[in-house]
Amino acid sequence: MKISGRHYRTLWPTPEGTVGIIDQSRLPFEAISTMAVRGAPLIGATAAYGIALAMRSEPSDAQLEVAERGLKATRPTAHNLAWALARMRRVLAPRPPPERAAAAASEAARICEADVEQCRSIGRHGCELIRRLARPGIVLNVLTHCNAGWLACIDWGTALAPVYSAHDEGIRLHVWVDETRPRNQGAALTAFELAAHGVPHTVIADNLGGHLMQRGAVDLVLVGADRVTATGDVCNKVGTYLKALAARDNRVPFYAALPASTIDWSLARGEDIPIEERSGSELTHMTGWGARGGWESVRVVPESSPVLNLAFDVTPARLVTGLITERGISPASREALRALYPDAERAA
Amino acid sequence: MKISGRHYRTLWPTPEGTVGIIDQSRLPFEAISTMAVRGAPLIGATAAYGIALAMRSEPSDAQLEVAERGLKATRPTAHNLAWALARMRRVLAPRPPPERAAAAASEAARICEADVEQCRSIGRHGCELIRRLARPGIVLNVLTHCNAGWLACIDWGTALAPVYSAHDEGIRLHVWVDETRPRNQGAALTAFELAAHGVPHTVIADNLGGHLMQRGAVDLVLVGADRVTATGDVCNKVGTYLKALAARDNRVPFYAALPASTIDWSLARGEDIPIEERSGSELTHMTGWGARGGWESVRVVPESSPVLNLAFDVTPARLVTGLITERGISPASREALRALYPDAERAA
Repeated sequence: MKISGRHYRTLWPTPEGTVGIIDQSRLPFEAISTMAVRGAPLIGATAAYGIALAMRSEPSDAQLEVAERGLKATRPTAHNLAWALARMRRVLAPRPPPERAAAAASEAARICEADVEQCRSIGRHGCELIRRLARPGIVLNVLTHCNAGWLACIDWGTALAPVYSAHDEGIRLHVWVDETRPRNQGAALTAFELAAHGVPHTVIADNLGGHLMQRGAVDLVLVGADRVTATGDVCNKVGTYLKALAARDNRVPFYAALPASTIDWSLARGEDIPIEERSGSELTHMTGWGARGGWESVRVVPESSPVLNLAFDVTPARLVTGLITERGISPASREALRALYPDAERAA
Repeated sequence: MKISGRHYRTLWPTPEGTVGIIDQSRLPFEAISTMAVRGAPLIGATAAYGIALAMRSEPSDAQLEVAERGLKATRPTAHNLAWALARMRRVLAPRPPPERAAAAASEAARICEADVEQCRSIGRHGCELIRRLARPGIVLNVLTHCNAGWLACIDWGTALAPVYSAHDEGIRLHVWVDETRPRNQGAALTAFELAAHGVPHTVIADNLGGHLMQRGAVDLVLVGADRVTATGDVCNKVGTYLKALAARDNRVPFYAALPASTIDWSLARGEDIPIEERSGSELTHMTGWGARGGWESVRVVPESSPVLNLAFDVTPARLVTGLITERGISPASREALRALYPDAERAA
């Protein structure tokens, strides 16, 4: 995707053999650096490059094991991480060590290229859905939670790919952007992406979406996913479940967009997905652009009060109208997912 | 209620004939000043004193009219405001101007005293409910949204009165405190109140309540109200509706606590309640305690993105388990409310 006319992806191998990424913890106010990656598909791709870098320094079985274990421990919820690590292991383990560095680098690159293509396909299928929902001359209102745009992937995004696709096709869209507490990925990243691409949007408190649906101001809820069970339960940024309930109560279609690498074929129950607990400081302190023109952090919860910061929740399949995948739109059920991915073991 | 052993109310007439209030925009970090009042019952009481101050300066019909109109325009949603102004007019209009200043001051004081008593009764009735729900030896988890504690009233509070009452009785309670974006009344005011009173609590993002209910970590949702229709629809701080949906989906009882002055007997449909739109800066900027030891404001939404800040939403009566009033607990229906308030025109 483009920022000020220059093409960016979120992740790229450098000529020096290292890996460049966009620092997403300081967007939109600062720019390119070398840390802070988030978003399930991007976490997976970054982990693949993590293995590639480890193989470059020492291509032993022990090092492969250590790198895999270390990377896996970073984030418990997003399935793409385990998926990418398993894929790297399948490619690397049978190979003799001297071949591993090159094989790892090209496999990581293939994961990235595949992610771009999958997101493009998700965009195409989701755009068909948007085209069906859009009424001529009337702006279609999409609500999204968190950031599932190109900053969460390599390019295009999952939930936002259909939005970009439809916007570029001339369909009149407006996006309600949930602020997405506590890390504000909506207010910071999604708003930044949409503004950079010229898509009309409005940032709202996470609390407002239900009221907007009651008023008929939302035509479609479109979110990403960090892990989807084989039965279609959708784990995504905390608060997604509340929007799905409001969508159901107001007959608004609710879709999650995701590539196959997000589907955990080993799980049948959403409640078995591990939910990451993150630092309470994400809730007690708010970082933003200060009056003095620099990043500042302010405390918004009194020191006398404890906090709990769980980062994800699970929307049961019964509340999900459909899953937008790179292979098309599927009902959120075991049967439908199996039919779409008869090669599931390989896809997984 | 007490802070560090000293008794406070939120509003008090001073010996000099002015009115003292607690500045709630800087709690818990700063202290007592003369502005910034919120919370439906406290807005009503403050408006009554506003009329009293106006009558002290000029007790004419014209001045009564001007003061009433000016005060009414300040906040469109909370019914207690219109209720208090109507009550003051009923008392003052028939009286000759020379009697109005004294009559207004004593009527405003009566409104405050009645509010304290009503909140105490709400606490008593709500405490019975909590006693019924509590299981011996197990901590009862209450979730609340926004601040409906004593800082929203004169003393005790509405939603928090039962919590204080039950805690003081020795029932083991823990309160999940919704941060309550965008103004953070939960993170600031409710957390402050509960910490000051010694009630165990945990501050959470507004997004987390649904997940906690799915996990069985919430036994009761207890909120205040800014306006309740004659049919039992509950208008409260934006985001309340989402919690009510989650409560219903997880079979968690959902109660709103309110005095009669919050009931708008003239309205039958929640969607007819005017919803206040507030400044976008509440969303784009976050104010907190800075690293340099002073209040600071940081920007958290890029300047390129518009925002929408609606402050309330409406929870339909069908999602409300009951209304905790000063006369007891009532189902959220026209029949039940009429039965509880057969003198409704006077109560209104």
